[in-house]
Amino acid sequence: MQVVVDRYPTWGDVVQVDTWVSGSWKNGMRRDWLLRGCKTGEILTRASSVWVMMNKLTRRLSKIPEEVREEIGSYFVDSAPILEEDNRKLPKLDDNTADYIRSGLSPRWSDLDVNQHVNNVKYIGWILESAPQAILESHELSSLTLEYRRECGRDSVLQSLTAVSGADVDNLAHSGQVECKHLLRLEEGAEIVRGRTEWRPKPANNFDTVNQVPAVST
Amino acid sequence: MQVVVDRYPTWGDVVQVDTWVSGSWKNGMRRDWLLRGCKTGEILTRASSVWVMMNKLTRRLSKIPEEVREEIGSYFVDSAPILEEDNRKLPKLDDNTADYIRSGLSPRWSDLDVNQHVNNVKYIGWILESAPQAILESHELSSLTLEYRRECGRDSVLQSLTAVSGADVDNLAHSGQVECKHLLRLEEGAEIVRGRTEWRPKPANNFDTVNQVPAVST
Repeated sequence: MQVVVDRYPTWGDVVQVDTWVSGSWKNGMRRDWLLRGCKTGEILTRASSVWVMMNKLTRRLSKIPEEVREEIGSYFVDSAPILEEDNRKLPKLDDNTADYIRSGLSPRWSDLDVNQHVNNVKYIGWILESAPQAILESHELSSLTLEYRRECGRDSVLQSLTAVSGADVDNLAHSGQVECKHLLRLEEGAEIVRGRTEWRPKPANNFDTVNQVPAVST
Repeated sequence: MQVVVDRYPTWGDVVQVDTWVSGSWKNGMRRDWLLRGCKTGEILTRASSVWVMMNKLTRRLSKIPEEVREEIGSYFVDSAPILEEDNRKLPKLDDNTADYIRSGLSPRWSDLDVNQHVNNVKYIGWILESAPQAILESHELSSLTLEYRRECGRDSVLQSLTAVSGADVDNLAHSGQVECKHLLRLEEGAEIVRGRTEWRPKPANNFDTVNQVPAVST
């Protein structure tokens, strides 16, 4: 899955989300998303993902059965991917190559979807847990690539690993563009997801606005 | 804060949310919510909450300053609370009175609001973490009362305590109405929130529907 955030919407913006399925082949299909400002049409976010079928009994990848393809095929749209595929290989991080490791992460009840899986969006939260706080405070996510490798169930205990490249780790607040590599793995070692994130400095006045909020709920 | 769920909406339902501020007095104000089905008008959920002002420097409760009241007072609505106040005292749980304790809970980055506080809705997730799984699987939340007592920041480490009453803890799946008491506290002891939840058996065909979902995203 790849996500590129061109601009974050702000309070009061109205956003339009378009999504479609396309590029179906033997084992899977592609789903793209386009988020735009409703009034301006300005593109806010583009995303593209590949989905595969899994056999519920063997837990292995499966061809899309002919009867399923017949049922859903007419909804497929013939269009080019909204994002050019990022073919850069995602490396496998380990204890030596990671700069930050956060252990003991486990799914909360509300992280599970109807299949009793961790919802794939929740992985992003776990990745951020091992990203250094200095990046989260000074930068905003501009793009994200995730490669899902394994199911994660409700009793899994995970580790989140992050390596920072192209920036001085001790002086992140003053860096420009920052790139990180990530790995989520089970504590016993199996890979759940590999990822890459790119970060750009936050717009300058962002934190000032936040500090003007006068009241606090308890 | 009190929430009563009369019925959960299902996929495809369109919901209307009304909310208003009322009952302002010296230190605080009330905010109520009403969720209804758009087409039917059927009431789905009612909620009522009390908000107070805090002095950002002293971190203590404060009167609403006159200039703030003047600015927002015209938006206040004169109406009775949508929920009758639940005056039953919430007990303080401890290691002896709790049936279940879950330790080591800490905020994720996305749990924080613009004040760098844990968003008050996230507390519900933590409470559920110490509720026994048998309840989560067989029952649905029908009401919730929360009493916020202390701020929770991003470096806090919490414990979630739950006591089950009015049901056989070993045979919850076959209980009717279940009531729980809850406490979230810092690991060093200070109380963050007390709570009470009420649960009713899930509609019978719920889990069958879930099992019919054919495909899995990876």
